Amino acid sequence: MKEKDSQSAPDLQAVRTFLLAYQQSLCSALQGEEPDQTFLQDDWSRAEGGGGITRVLEQGSVLEKAGVNFSHVHGSRLPDSATAARPELAGRAFQAMGVSVVIHPRNPLVPTSHANFRFFLATHPERAPVWWFGGGYDLTPYYGFEEDCQHWHRTAAAACAPYGEKVYPNYKRWCDRYFRLAHRSEQRGIGGLFFDDLNTGGFARCFAFLQGVAESYPEAYLPIVRRRKGMACTDGQRAFQEYRRGRYVEFNLVYDRGTLFGLQTGGRTESILMSLPPRVRWEYCREDAAGSDERRLTDFFLRPRDWLADGFPEESGEPA
Amino acid sequence: MKEKDSQSAPDLQAVRTFLLAYQQSLCSALQGEEPDQTFLQDDWSRAEGGGGITRVLEQGSVLEKAGVNFSHVHGSRLPDSATAARPELAGRAFQAMGVSVVIHPRNPLVPTSHANFRFFLATHPERAPVWWFGGGYDLTPYYGFEEDCQHWHRTAAAACAPYGEKVYPNYKRWCDRYFRLAHRSEQRGIGGLFFDDLNTGGFARCFAFLQGVAESYPEAYLPIVRRRKGMACTDGQRAFQEYRRGRYVEFNLVYDRGTLFGLQTGGRTESILMSLPPRVRWEYCREDAAGSDERRLTDFFLRPRDWLADGFPEESGEPA
Repeated sequence: MKEKDSQSAPDLQAVRTFLLAYQQSLCSALQGEEPDQTFLQDDWSRAEGGGGITRVLEQGSVLEKAGVNFSHVHGSRLPDSATAARPELAGRAFQAMGVSVVIHPRNPLVPTSHANFRFFLATHPERAPVWWFGGGYDLTPYYGFEEDCQHWHRTAAAACAPYGEKVYPNYKRWCDRYFRLAHRSEQRGIGGLFFDDLNTGGFARCFAFLQGVAESYPEAYLPIVRRRKGMACTDGQRAFQEYRRGRYVEFNLVYDRGTLFGLQTGGRTESILMSLPPRVRWEYCREDAAGSDERRLTDFFLRPRDWLADGFPEESGEPA
Repeated sequence: MKEKDSQSAPDLQAVRTFLLAYQQSLCSALQGEEPDQTFLQDDWSRAEGGGGITRVLEQGSVLEKAGVNFSHVHGSRLPDSATAARPELAGRAFQAMGVSVVIHPRNPLVPTSHANFRFFLATHPERAPVWWFGGGYDLTPYYGFEEDCQHWHRTAAAACAPYGEKVYPNYKRWCDRYFRLAHRSEQRGIGGLFFDDLNTGGFARCFAFLQGVAESYPEAYLPIVRRRKGMACTDGQRAFQEYRRGRYVEFNLVYDRGTLFGLQTGGRTESILMSLPPRVRWEYCREDAAGSDERRLTDFFLRPRDWLADGFPEESGEPA
């Protein structure tokens, strides 16, 4: 089976079918947490080829802004930025499809979360097509709760476990390295999973892995939403959330490859920037008191650590 | 005189003295418009060499956030991004000094403004030093007033006039091309002046030009602040201002060379990002009614036009 799988042709249509169904079921699950607003749907197409379905919910009482976007685009020249591992594919014709998710809850005790699941196919008139999967999910709390971080990472680890014991630690580390604001020497959040250029072991196995991770995302996130959404919070906590959301904006506009790639190659701006939080503040040199919950966010939660076992800090997210 | 000037050595100390005095007088002039808060001062230094003086005013009743920063840094290797016109200087030892100004008023009828005045010196153990000035100022209204735009551009043109009739139109066009959000096909504001790599005609003449432009900046801006700051405004106008400030964030984090250069080379993050507005919103696919003041901002004011004469639209800000 393994032999056959690794030679099997990629099934683009199966990935598309999965991603479309996933978008729908994720929106339904999120809608179950939000009593006051509903997801709107925008279908769009792109002059250069392909299009997408953007689903957005705004000004909810639980979900202040939530976006779940499907896109499937094709083009005649794959940009360099699409694959770090195989620059020799740049310039090939390609198809790219994926679902991107960003949830900004209203209550500052509920963390923001992000997920992305994508599939690339680079074709060539004379050579075999090359394909790969990428994706993952990560969590950005404003007020940290250790049990939430443990639940998040345990769910991620369980989704990876059938594929070997090194998968979770590898993709957890990759996530910590990627979601990092170098100009502040700060992590964006408490991490999760991040992977790219995945095609080891054949299409069927990689696709099954992607599906398993995608299906684990609501299992990782929704219990945290349910546990925190009704908790009382103060105006000061809300202001801190808006201030910390500034870091989210800084990361997405300065570093995030998907965002910059989209903006620079004529993607649909409003779908790409759906990831930006609804209300944000910047303050000059904000300092929170030693020992405060706000200070504990950066001093404790935003340092890469082993959330499965001892909670000990790990190496910095900085590349060695 | 011209011969002598063009051979004269650059007077780094004179530029430093001017910039420091300018920072102080500009803060005093701005303070004159703000009754409730005062400019704070942070002196900082940088491990690699040099430092700066950051002056920030926050939560004023007129000036919601204002920053006037002086910096003077030196290093052993000039980065590519410091000079577009002379890439052969990259790698030389350098000194860079400048004053950067960003004013975010509270009242949405008062435009945001930005100014920058800088001087670079690239040295070489065996060759003559190379120096240049750069800078300019630009205005970002939320609600447009033609008389304000005309006053702004007339003041800019008057500062350029002693140096020839082509200076203002050239630097006005450069400004329109630079302060442009390509991903939205939108100008950041109504422009002003932008210049770089200026060393034509000798140090004394260029320095005099820089001083003239710098001194014209408060003459261009403060009358507009005085005229608009007391006008009544609505919550809806305030919300639109916060929404439009999102464009300011997008420009500064995605395109602005000074910001990205600073963040990527270990500049002082809180001084660099002082330019970001205090409160910001993002909304998905906001549409304002045809004929509304909000729509007139993008349909009329944010299109490059000749503000001195007929008000006719000019070529797009896009490079030809």
